[in-house]
Order: sequence, then structure tokens, then C-alpha cells
Amino acid sequence: MTSSAPTAQAVRAAAKRLSGHIRLTPLLESDALNARVGGRVLIKAECLQRTGSFKIRGAYNRLVQITGSGRERGVVAYSSGNHAQGVAFAARALGMPAVIVMPADVPQMKMDRTRALGAEVVTYDRATQSREAIAAEIAWQREATIVPSFDDPDIIAGQGTIGLEIVDQAEAMDAHVDQALVCCGGGGLLSGIGVALKDHWPKIQLYAVEPEAYDDVCRSLEAGKRVANPNFPATVCDALQTQECGEITFAAMKELGVRGLRVSEQEVVNAMAFAFEDLKLVVEPGGAVALAALLAGKVATKDQVTALILSGGNVDRQTFVRCLEAAA
Amino acid sequence: MTSSAPTAQAVRAAAKRLSGHIRLTPLLESDALNARVGGRVLIKAECLQRTGSFKIRGAYNRLVQITGSGRERGVVAYSSGNHAQGVAFAARALGMPAVIVMPADVPQMKMDRTRALGAEVVTYDRATQSREAIAAEIAWQREATIVPSFDDPDIIAGQGTIGLEIVDQAEAMDAHVDQALVCCGGGGLLSGIGVALKDHWPKIQLYAVEPEAYDDVCRSLEAGKRVANPNFPATVCDALQTQECGEITFAAMKELGVRGLRVSEQEVVNAMAFAFEDLKLVVEPGGAVALAALLAGKVATKDQVTALILSGGNVDRQTFVRCLEAAA
Repeated sequence: MTSSAPTAQAVRAAAKRLSGHIRLTPLLESDALNARVGGRVLIKAECLQRTGSFKIRGAYNRLVQITGSGRERGVVAYSSGNHAQGVAFAARALGMPAVIVMPADVPQMKMDRTRALGAEVVTYDRATQSREAIAAEIAWQREATIVPSFDDPDIIAGQGTIGLEIVDQAEAMDAHVDQALVCCGGGGLLSGIGVALKDHWPKIQLYAVEPEAYDDVCRSLEAGKRVANPNFPATVCDALQTQECGEITFAAMKELGVRGLRVSEQEVVNAMAFAFEDLKLVVEPGGAVALAALLAGKVATKDQVTALILSGGNVDRQTFVRCLEAAA
Repeated sequence: MTSSAPTAQAVRAAAKRLSGHIRLTPLLESDALNARVGGRVLIKAECLQRTGSFKIRGAYNRLVQITGSGRERGVVAYSSGNHAQGVAFAARALGMPAVIVMPADVPQMKMDRTRALGAEVVTYDRATQSREAIAAEIAWQREATIVPSFDDPDIIAGQGTIGLEIVDQAEAMDAHVDQALVCCGGGGLLSGIGVALKDHWPKIQLYAVEPEAYDDVCRSLEAGKRVANPNFPATVCDALQTQECGEITFAAMKELGVRGLRVSEQEVVNAMAFAFEDLKLVVEPGGAVALAALLAGKVATKDQVTALILSGGNVDRQTFVRCLEAAA
């Protein structure tokens, strides 16, 4: 592995930087869910995080390490929504200007909130324009720092702090985690969490969960090399519409022995309805894929302790209602 | 006050009995909400409690103190839903039979879940039948113990454990609570929480929040004596359709200097939508009235620390969708 590979030490350093700036989200357990799967399920409710998703962790850990005149020149990021809010929040907290390049078709709530956090939003067309090119042009003009959404050691280490919290919270609940299910777009969340969990529980099995239409990590792990998704098929999981995972994240996932799981759109909305009814949590489609895989029986859970991440809750009312109505 | 008046000591004893049987629910803070009200708001997310509401606390504290042959003969309770689930859960945990008398028009989810917890459900017509008489008849036949839903020292002490948790959690957040907003049906929750909070913060101002159609506590506090609601007007807050508060709870609320606040049906659904969008929590109508009062500006919040309870999340999909659609 390269020197950019995520380490447990980097995750612990990130946790120190984040202390006092993020919320310790609860690790919940549901009597109904435990009974249903015949084991224990520990649910990390990261939808309750500031900005409504985990993305603030990586963003803050990255931005706080930009010093001197770099701070005044600010940052540029491209994101379908949650990373946008994470970067905007961290930039405001640190007094830095931020420009966010967002697809024009992103949920309105995510765009409104990014602007409400003080960031400048520049929109583009997912089908015809390159967000990387737009961001690079802005960064060049302003001498600003580009903040990638997943393939960056500091971003990965920041997201990994969720893993450290799970370790502490699970131990306090007398639970030894056998397996963890994590949603996967670019792989930053899973790489970071995986490193932290595996450092504490070396035998843990990690799963990357993807929507069927964006199963590049499943296919990449099967092929042993990175393969991309075809151009932007439709999915309700707007947060997971990533064309391919990163070089650093893919290497990390291979090293961690990650396995891939695919969930259907129907399984995703069913999981959102379960979270609504049993957990009393609002989970966005992309944030519900790990729960979807569990409920659909894609891993053996009997007598196992399974940890899973509900990674975000940024969903419009209309979309949420549509998902509840489509659920079984 | 009588010897049945709730005390901080009784609440602390209840907390010991409940330890390991209930969940420590998070005390959340929202950046958006703090900015909106110009102060700090600490949100006790009791909708994340086992059975989806706070009622398990009082029920368990009451049932665990039934010993000997009383345990085999079991319990009878009447409830519109949340107390039913709390009693059913506690009875199952203690191996006791439970009969729950429920209005026939209660949300289906609450009835299904009460049965799923192993309780026997007997239904009645809110408009024409007396639940007290039905419960008394069953209790007489079976020599079972009637578990009241609020006017009982052990029930009140159990609900009050939420107050102890708020004290610990707020102190850990460097917050000194100036005022607390609590939903009010029969007054058990507010009496218990109030005693615990006032024991720690003697100057705290407590508010009972009611739907306009069920404002008996507001009117009772104004009149200095208990007055009842007219027979069952319509409200979306099914959990707060109480005809009048209790003798013990009313005496406690007077002693605690509680003030009453009324919220409209529109303010309730607006609060549910706010909880959905900003807090990522599913809150049932009756559980959202305290937040509704805050958002509607019914108390001064500038530079104040306000604690409020989201007391439950047991709401059908259809009702939830209807509320979101009716919200501003």
C-alpha cells in the first residue's frame, strides 16, 4: 500500500481535531430488528450528525489542516449534496470562503442548505459537463484548495472517526462486532471506518453496500481492479451516484478484505419505511442501503453482532413521501 | 402536598430500577434551531426510546414493584396506545400477563404493536363506553392489578427519570436549563420531569403544552382547580386526548409553578415537519407539541437555554404523510 493508505493512527488524530465540532451520534439497537434477524444489530445513527450526514467529519478534518494564506483563499468542492454541506459547514466554522459545484438536479433541500451555510453554489449539468473541470477552473482563478469528496487521506481519516465511536459505544454495550455494513459511493466512508474497526476487531468482515445501478465497487472487487459505472443511470440514491471509487479507497478496500453487496430500489425504500416505523429516524435513500441489505437477508445475521451505518437524512418531503408510499 | 406527591428521591430510585431496561435517549441540539430562536435548545429525543415513547419508564417502574402472586395474576391497563405498549413491554420483560383496554379508533400501529408485545387487547368505543369500568371488571375477574397511565406515584417517578438524564446530559454540554417545555395529557410526564429538573435547577420555569382542543391543564392552572375537557373533540394529537389531569399530577404541577401553553393543529404539523427536515426524527403529533410551542414563539427564548421533550414517534405512515402535506 502507498503512504496515502489510511491508518488507525490518522483516524485517531482526526478524532482529536474533530472533538467539540461534531456530534457523538447514538449507536441504537432495536428490539424488533434484533428479533427479526436473530442476532444483535448496532445502528449508527449518523443521520443525526450536524448537517444531516457524516460528511462534516472528513471535510472538517481536511479544512482545519489548511493554514496560512490558504485559509483566506478558501476551498472549492464538487458534490451531489452532503459533502457540499459538510465543506460549507467546516468552511464557515473556520472562517474560510467556499465554492461548491453541484449538479443542477440535486434535491432542492441540499442546495438550499449549502447556500444557507454561506457557501457560493455553482451548478452544472450531470450529463454534459465535467464537475472536475469546473472546479479546477475556479480553484485556478482563486488559488483555492480543491477538497475532494472521498479519495483523500484526510477525508478518509475524518469519516473513519465513526469507526472509533462504534468501537467505544459497542464495548460499552458489551458487544463485539462480527461484521459491518456500510453504504458505498466513492468508498471514503467505508475505507475510514474499516481501518478503525479492523484495528480493534481484526476478524471483522466489512461489506460495501451499493444500489444495483451503481455497483462499481462490487464489480471492481470481483475484477480485482477499478471499473466504472455506465453514465448516470437513474436511482433514488442520489448520494451514491459516483462514477467510480478512488485509487486510495479501492486499495484500502482490497487490503481490508471488503466484500460487495447490491440492493434494489425497492429494498432501499423498504428500509426507509422500516427506519421510519421502527427506529423513528428519517434516513435518505443513499443512507439506507446498509439497512436495506440487512433486511433483505444479504448477510447471515443469526447469533452475529452486525454494525451498520445510517449515513444521512437529507431527503426532501416529496421524495420521502414517495418512498414511504412505494415501500412494501 | 400529600404523601403521594412525587419526590426527587422517588425519581432516583426509579432510575436505579430502570437501569439496563431502557435506553439512554440522546439530548440533541440543532444549529438551525439555535440560530432561529437566538438561544440554546436541548431536545430530548424520547421518540428513540424502546416501544417508541417514554411510557415504558413509568410502566416498568410500576410493574417491577408488583411481587409475589400479584405477578402471576398480571396487570390491566387502559391506554390510547403508548402506555399500552409500555405496559405490554414491561409485562413481557417481567413474565406477567397483561390485558390492555384500547379505544377502537386508535392508530392501527399502536394496536398491532401492543399485541406483538404479547398483551391481550380489548377494544371499546371512546364515545359510549367507559374504559375505567371495562378495566375494573377485568381486574376484578382476574384479581389483576390496574396500572393507571399517569395518576400514580410510581408511574410519575418512572417518567421523571427523563429529567435526571436531562440534568446529566445538559451539564455535560455546559448548559444550565432555564425553562422546559413538556407535552401534557394527564400530567404524569411533566410532574415527574418537573420534580427532577427543579431539584437540580430550583429557578427553572416549567411549561405544560397542550393541543387547543384539550387545554384542560391550561384552564385548570388558571382556575386553580381541576376542570375537564368537553367530550373528545377532534385532534391530530391522539396521545393527548385526556379528559382531565390527575389529582396527584395537578397538585404536583401547581406546586412546581407550571404554566400552560396551547398549540393549534397547524402548529403541531409544522413542528412535525421541522423535526423531519432539521432533526431527522419521526415525531408523532402528540409528541411534537412542545416543539410546536417553541417554534410558534410562545415562550421567550433569546439567550435562554430551553429543554424540550419529543415524547414519542408512534405514528402511522398515512398520518405522517398527511401531516407533512398539511405543514407550512
